[in-house]
Amino acid sequence: MAANTFGNIFRVTTFGESHGPGIGLIIDGCPPGIDIDVSFIQQELDRRKPGQSKIVTQRKEDEFFVIQSGIFEGKSTGTPISIFIPNNDQKSKDYLHIAEIFRPSHADYTYQQKYGIRDYTGGGRSSARETVARVAAGAIAKLILKSIGIEIKAFVSQVGHIKMDLTKDIDYQHIETNIVRCPDELVAKEMIELIMDIKKEGDTIGGMITCHILGCPVGLGAPVFDKLHADLGKAMLSINAVKGFEYGSGFDCVRMRGSQHNDSFVNQDGNIFTKTNYSGGIQGGISNGMPINFNVAFKPVATIVQAQETIDINGKIALAEGKGRHDPCVVPRAVPIVEAMATLVLIDHWLLQKTVHF
Amino acid sequence: MAANTFGNIFRVTTFGESHGPGIGLIIDGCPPGIDIDVSFIQQELDRRKPGQSKIVTQRKEDEFFVIQSGIFEGKSTGTPISIFIPNNDQKSKDYLHIAEIFRPSHADYTYQQKYGIRDYTGGGRSSARETVARVAAGAIAKLILKSIGIEIKAFVSQVGHIKMDLTKDIDYQHIETNIVRCPDELVAKEMIELIMDIKKEGDTIGGMITCHILGCPVGLGAPVFDKLHADLGKAMLSINAVKGFEYGSGFDCVRMRGSQHNDSFVNQDGNIFTKTNYSGGIQGGISNGMPINFNVAFKPVATIVQAQETIDINGKIALAEGKGRHDPCVVPRAVPIVEAMATLVLIDHWLLQKTVHF
Amino acid sequence: MAANTFGNIFRVTTFGESHGPGIGLIIDGCPPGIDIDVSFIQQELDRRKPGQSKIVTQRKEDEFFVIQSGIFEGKSTGTPISIFIPNNDQKSKDYLHIAEIFRPSHADYTYQQKYGIRDYTGGGRSSARETVARVAAGAIAKLILKSIGIEIKAFVSQVGHIKMDLTKDIDYQHIETNIVRCPDELVAKEMIELIMDIKKEGDTIGGMITCHILGCPVGLGAPVFDKLHADLGKAMLSINAVKGFEYGSGFDCVRMRGSQHNDSFVNQDGNIFTKTNYSGGIQGGISNGMPINFNVAFKPVATIVQAQETIDINGKIALAEGKGRHDPCVVPRAVPIVEAMATLVLIDHWLLQKTVHF
Amino acid sequence: MAANTFGNIFRVTTFGESHGPGIGLIIDGCPPGIDIDVSFIQQELDRRKPGQSKIVTQRKEDEFFVIQSGIFEGKSTGTPISIFIPNNDQKSKDYLHIAEIFRPSHADYTYQQKYGIRDYTGGGRSSARETVARVAAGAIAKLILKSIGIEIKAFVSQVGHIKMDLTKDIDYQHIETNIVRCPDELVAKEMIELIMDIKKEGDTIGGMITCHILGCPVGLGAPVFDKLHADLGKAMLSINAVKGFEYGSGFDCVRMRGSQHNDSFVNQDGNIFTKTNYSGGIQGGISNGMPINFNVAFKPVATIVQAQETIDINGKIALAEGKGRHDPCVVPRAVPIVEAMATLVLIDHWLLQKTVHF
Repeated sequence: MAANTFGNIFRVTTFGESHGPGIGLIIDGCPPGIDIDVSFIQQELDRRKPGQSKIVTQRKEDEFFVIQSGIFEGKSTGTPISIFIPNNDQKSKDYLHIAEIFRPSHADYTYQQKYGIRDYTGGGRSSARETVARVAAGAIAKLILKSIGIEIKAFVSQVGHIKMDLTKDIDYQHIETNIVRCPDELVAKEMIELIMDIKKEGDTIGGMITCHILGCPVGLGAPVFDKLHADLGKAMLSINAVKGFEYGSGFDCVRMRGSQHNDSFVNQDGNIFTKTNYSGGIQGGISNGMPINFNVAFKPVATIVQAQETIDINGKIALAEGKGRHDPCVVPRAVPIVEAMATLVLIDHWLLQKTVHF
Repeated sequence: MAANTFGNIFRVTTFGESHGPGIGLIIDGCPPGIDIDVSFIQQELDRRKPGQSKIVTQRKEDEFFVIQSGIFEGKSTGTPISIFIPNNDQKSKDYLHIAEIFRPSHADYTYQQKYGIRDYTGGGRSSARETVARVAAGAIAKLILKSIGIEIKAFVSQVGHIKMDLTKDIDYQHIETNIVRCPDELVAKEMIELIMDIKKEGDTIGGMITCHILGCPVGLGAPVFDKLHADLGKAMLSINAVKGFEYGSGFDCVRMRGSQHNDSFVNQDGNIFTKTNYSGGIQGGISNGMPINFNVAFKPVATIVQAQETIDINGKIALAEGKGRHDPCVVPRAVPIVEAMATLVLIDHWLLQKTVHF
Repeated sequence: MAANTFGNIFRVTTFGESHGPGIGLIIDGCPPGIDIDVSFIQQELDRRKPGQSKIVTQRKEDEFFVIQSGIFEGKSTGTPISIFIPNNDQKSKDYLHIAEIFRPSHADYTYQQKYGIRDYTGGGRSSARETVARVAAGAIAKLILKSIGIEIKAFVSQVGHIKMDLTKDIDYQHIETNIVRCPDELVAKEMIELIMDIKKEGDTIGGMITCHILGCPVGLGAPVFDKLHADLGKAMLSINAVKGFEYGSGFDCVRMRGSQHNDSFVNQDGNIFTKTNYSGGIQGGISNGMPINFNVAFKPVATIVQAQETIDINGKIALAEGKGRHDPCVVPRAVPIVEAMATLVLIDHWLLQKTVHF
Repeated sequence: MAANTFGNIFRVTTFGESHGPGIGLIIDGCPPGIDIDVSFIQQELDRRKPGQSKIVTQRKEDEFFVIQSGIFEGKSTGTPISIFIPNNDQKSKDYLHIAEIFRPSHADYTYQQKYGIRDYTGGGRSSARETVARVAAGAIAKLILKSIGIEIKAFVSQVGHIKMDLTKDIDYQHIETNIVRCPDELVAKEMIELIMDIKKEGDTIGGMITCHILGCPVGLGAPVFDKLHADLGKAMLSINAVKGFEYGSGFDCVRMRGSQHNDSFVNQDGNIFTKTNYSGGIQGGISNGMPINFNVAFKPVATIVQAQETIDINGKIALAEGKGRHDPCVVPRAVPIVEAMATLVLIDHWLLQKTVHF
């Protein structure tokens, strides 16, 4: 129910299939009077778009978009903002070869079983193309968060076995200076090489995205079910190909002791912070003013050029073969998606807090 | 909003502070006609209760509960089921020493900042005692899932550096035969020893719980925001002390290749399954009929006997000291909580699917 | 779904049957720091309680209540407030004579058909006793609205054919000075006489409640589905025995012309108001600062002493006979219920508006 | 919150202003496999469209629509259905004369005060044009209800003082045979004459729509807040210009006695029904299998040709004058809107009941 809606106050509902007329969204609950910078929305869509570099899918999609409502003379009006992004590369015939096959580790089989019907000309709602709507919605939310000093910075921290050192200071300026979106330029180079090698082999590789949220005020999130990190976790796990989420100390906490893991409070001239940040900026589900940080694990893309044995819709053995034009590694293009989903969680909790303290 | 409610169709709302009269809950949306086995609810509460063994907190709490509505002649009536679990060990004076202190890695500080007011006689809603309501609600949901053949089996798979081998077959019969709830008896013994050592040192240690869901039908979950694993992830991350969630291949997927990670479909006499299960039983956010599996990382308990430097509510330096009677490791008692939250996610998606296929 | 929850930000969930242990409720989303005047809650419950005068049911129920959570040192904490009102007159045997009968114009038949199971010892959730929870929740909301200058005044404006003149100024001081709660003392006297006559005949009679909301700021409500009057209408129609709702000009508007019905704006020294108020204080679904007014029609109580032919659960002809102790007219006791439901709508829209203008 | 969304399982979210690019909607939760008859959607839109007869606005709007998602080879796929209806007559200059005026009994003033910003080139979301989205969504819901035997028949029962006799049998065949949509042809003629007279005077007149729901199964609706008639009431009151809602005996119940109002059950060869139907097909908030009937009061349209004194956005006295092309009476075109909203309530409760009895 409401399975295509995200958020409570700032509510985003998306629609559209990868091979239909386009993808769209409605934002209900955007505050009025916000300056809507259309070029910023475009810029965010461009960070996600296919064909942007040699390490991503070579499909060409110019992410053109139309705002259909909710904005008047450059400002939000408080009424639903609707955005439509037409599909411009919808060659359904490209998909005829997979129409009757259940591709390994795709949603073909589960989708067919759930609904009893399936638009086989593309991935339907399971296509990663759906995330373009999230990035558009996130761009508008980002404009609001920026104005109150909250910054969301995601970057690629690992590709296959190539991993950057997360204990060092991150230079956010360098995220967008390379095509893999890793702020450590040397590591970035290695990642790019690995992806190019994988691509040549007709294979794909997994990766990890790290996200930092800076300037988040104390008090966002709720103590029980709607913990801030629980909502961030759901947001990340709702992105295609994500297999894991951890924040603060994450899975490393399993081996740690309380005496080592606890973050002591310090008061420096009225400025309260913690000495360490194993809590990842969230304590008891509520932001504590420290930087929020989390990691998101992405699996290798399921579409590979190599032939794989599987079954067809009649249960007969069949061969699945990718026709190219797919991402060898999903993380470079997933960076803006991670940011968008984090933004949607933050704006929702920030607006909700207006009903607690007023 | 609805921050104390979980679920859409089978909705659980909880209330109560650790040091008030008690903890309670309402289930709205439980189908009518379900046989409510009261002794099973008690049994589930007992698996979570303090004082059950030498490796958990020695606080004594007999989890007595009252059903206040929704059940008639042993069966659910379709109306709200309300359960109240009185607090029987609410010595508020135990907490006076912490009333004015922001304990490290507790929710004291964030809670105070969020609400501007705080019941300092306990952890308020941030107390792990709140989870007793989840276990009670989960017990009722489990009765329904059992009747349709879905089984949820959680167990402790790691404590500190002691880790069981998850690639081997799990003997679920052995989960409840030892006090740490690890199905590998030899590993369990080591875990218990480690926890006893940690306890003697006045320290605490992290741990991991693994959960398997067996018999889940194909088709639960939705392709976009409400992916089955996204809802499971939120459910787990909403449990106190949880820092990470992964399903199927989890964080290991980062290093894997598509050719290795993809799960090929096989049709054995009309029985469709996958050769491997890196997907963890969920593809495109929808269950595929294979066992669902996930891991949950728990941090070491923040309350330790060792003194720690921190600040008080006036920003002055202060010492935090635990008064004992706290868990040295949270995972043995968290096993039924993980099961309860997984159950709530499953029942909700199962009921929702009734509105898709009918 | 959420069929026992009312509201979005200030969410009230109720539970309990008329003949179980009691009736209860959870308020989730009450802002922190509100002074909770317990005697005011009691006073509101007493306005609704049975046995308060000769014209209502002579059942004796002292509405004792327990606050189980959410309040600390007399103030709301921002966490769920739970209130439990035990049933003290639960003589289930009183109901044995109706256990197998579908009483005319009661919910017995529909309830049985909907759920396939029914607690026949009382009206289950369909009992008007459920409204005690609404009054308790409304009392807390009223404390908040009072502090911001919003007053909600309901009163009985008609009983049978006895009708007060609503075009005259209402003296709200006189609502509680007579047992029928009609502010026109002369009309009140006639209403009381009529009800006493009806009671002697073993019959019941319908009535109307009018509600005025004073001091409502401009801007509450939304332009499309959640129009302020649409939410007020749903709130009123959710009260037992209500058959109709109208606001402003109401059903009289059908015969009116635009030139007559339109409310012209006037600016008197910066104070904007309308000359007439056919809009009933709401234009385009949003409050305009004028007094909000609406009428609610209540049917005659279905339980009558006179014997009525009906059928039993086996479809056989049967006789339904009321055993007395029921209200001859529901409106005197429904006044606080109308106020409570109006209050819940107002507080919710008021809190929601905090997320629009901040 | 969710102020532009209606429904819980079958959720409709609408967007668009009267003078922007168009009006649109998303249906989330439409079951898969439904045959989508596009010509039926068109037919429903045509029943609502301007310019259809001499008694409605003479604005010409061909209601062209595009389905953007959710349908594959003529069937619903279970994913969001999005429909866009472009505005083809968006002469914003027509509205320049009202840009700075708060028209009497319009939403101009409240809208401006709520949001602090207003698209003055039309009525924004308060425009009746928004209802085109409701009719489109309702058309799809109607296709489902038809297939299970539920029929929804609305018609004009009163215009000004001209009223049809509702105690007589209604011949639904005649609703669409006259331009006012009143099934009594003689009364219809009088209504049409009255509307033509009113139009000549540059004035407008109120009216009433009656709606009958036939074939509704027993058991839809819930006993507490989400009573079937409460949801119908909210749905109707959310339609522009509606001032009142009553069902069954409605406001007449105020004068009635219980002995007269109670509907006795009868069992005729296993077919259970009630002798009378003052309950209007709903008892205790749940449908009882009898025809559901309700009345909806519509005020006279606020836009009139006659000049009216009011104020402008600077608080100065100003004159409001309609420029023609508005409806002299709203009810003929509101018939399909009433049906659409009733349909949305019914489909939602029908789908929800799938989670109760399965």
